[in-house]
Amino acid sequence: MTGTKTISEKPRATDGESASATTAPTQFIKTRLETYAYRRFGRGAALPLVCLQHFTGTLDNWDPAVADPLARGREVILFESAGLGRSTGAVPTSIPGMAEHFIAFAEAIGLTQVDVLGFSLGGMIAQQVALEHPALVRRMLLVGTAPEGGEDIMHIEKPELRKILEDRTLTGYQVLVKLFFTPSEASQAAGRAFTARLSARTEDREPLSGPNVAQAQIAAFRAWERVDGERFAKLRRITQPCLVVNGVRDTMIPVRNSYFLGEHLPNAMLLTYPDAGHGSLFQYHEAFVRQASLFLDSEAL
Amino acid sequence: MTGTKTISEKPRATDGESASATTAPTQFIKTRLETYAYRRFGRGAALPLVCLQHFTGTLDNWDPAVADPLARGREVILFESAGLGRSTGAVPTSIPGMAEHFIAFAEAIGLTQVDVLGFSLGGMIAQQVALEHPALVRRMLLVGTAPEGGEDIMHIEKPELRKILEDRTLTGYQVLVKLFFTPSEASQAAGRAFTARLSARTEDREPLSGPNVAQAQIAAFRAWERVDGERFAKLRRITQPCLVVNGVRDTMIPVRNSYFLGEHLPNAMLLTYPDAGHGSLFQYHEAFVRQASLFLDSEAL
Repeated sequence: MTGTKTISEKPRATDGESASATTAPTQFIKTRLETYAYRRFGRGAALPLVCLQHFTGTLDNWDPAVADPLARGREVILFESAGLGRSTGAVPTSIPGMAEHFIAFAEAIGLTQVDVLGFSLGGMIAQQVALEHPALVRRMLLVGTAPEGGEDIMHIEKPELRKILEDRTLTGYQVLVKLFFTPSEASQAAGRAFTARLSARTEDREPLSGPNVAQAQIAAFRAWERVDGERFAKLRRITQPCLVVNGVRDTMIPVRNSYFLGEHLPNAMLLTYPDAGHGSLFQYHEAFVRQASLFLDSEAL
Repeated sequence: MTGTKTISEKPRATDGESASATTAPTQFIKTRLETYAYRRFGRGAALPLVCLQHFTGTLDNWDPAVADPLARGREVILFESAGLGRSTGAVPTSIPGMAEHFIAFAEAIGLTQVDVLGFSLGGMIAQQVALEHPALVRRMLLVGTAPEGGEDIMHIEKPELRKILEDRTLTGYQVLVKLFFTPSEASQAAGRAFTARLSARTEDREPLSGPNVAQAQIAAFRAWERVDGERFAKLRRITQPCLVVNGVRDTMIPVRNSYFLGEHLPNAMLLTYPDAGHGSLFQYHEAFVRQASLFLDSEAL
């Protein structure tokens, strides 16, 4: 984990370089902890961008409209943590436990410094990795996420979320459209376009997450909400430049958690989108890609 | 105020086109209300950007590091409202009163559609103009400002502000450095660099604002804080794309006012900067210019 070598030390799958989020083959790497599924695509001089996924999501939940344009200029690596998709092992019940899997993956694949896109649960893991292994993380995109000690994180028992999750008329991706997008017609239409893009990948898909995944990840959220000692004190030690992003109508991890991040991370910009929920980066994929690229390509904030 | 003509209908001062914030000559225009001082510089295909100034500030308070790069690609017009600098008349004691002067100026100078950079007090005037004359305003940069019904707006009687304003050891721009920047060394250094840039203009400067200016503008702030009817309801009628910007440590107009704007304006992105106060756009001038240019040049958010 030391040194400044920024490209993979192991040979890369050449077909991955011309592939996309839709076509990149799933690869597997055996590590000291587990065997992880991952996908890599894109190329360029910039540091690789590792993407850490949301609650119950798998490699198949990354929007090509976000991942593919970000892969122009850099390699994008989608990581499947333990117990998800075809990765082996059990889903940890804490964020630090999940961070260990990311570390093991980065070591095994030969990544010594990366940029990270952490979405929702993935943003919490990104913060933990930045704390424990600051040299590994250069810059972070923290989207729809919360700091340790944040509040109202993924309380799926809330009436507004339970109503969606228990609606038997919603099938497949329709649940995701309701959960990640606001009730406005514009946002719902963006949600349908998003799930159509996800559906473009028809082969080599990951198995869906079962209730055991949700249960373990919810336990991790509850632990992450706990305040031990001075609230948000750890954020002062995360000195990497960060771009914090959220929709102002996020019902799964409300935007005030992003305000906490913007106010307490010493080197973070906050960006919010209107009429957007948890999936703001997918709804505003063009704006998000523009802003994220500008941030990743900048020397300063 | 109708039609889509977007460039000045009157001849422009040719020397203004090659001038900068530091060198642009002050011009004057007699209107149906008052005679206003203004400066214009830059050129390009984009809509003109009209800049509306902060509490007690004049034309001389626009940072060349912000105004000059924004003038690459568009004309920048700095407007001096009534009772300020060498503009005639009295400073109104309400935001709608100030908006009337902007309207009279735009009419007289032949501007039918513009982008607006409204900083602090200027951001309130921009919102009022967008409400009353929506066709005049295409996009707005609302920096360090607050919606009508906002809170803790320029309470210079607060201990943290009074301590600075009553400090006799601070002279000239030193007060501005303390008021607009955080106590951190990095922010104070940015403040000193900012005021050095302001000092580069040595001739054709505006007279400083006196206590009567401050008194009238404070009265306007107090009126703007009042909540009549449903709080923030008017914001729903401001449909222009907006980029709301603030420092997370703003003591003059705290960042929660920018959160209100981001949450209630139907088409606004919010951007916040770390370790920055009221003068966040001057402290992070490079990032601000990048983000503002990207926003002004975009078709959508």
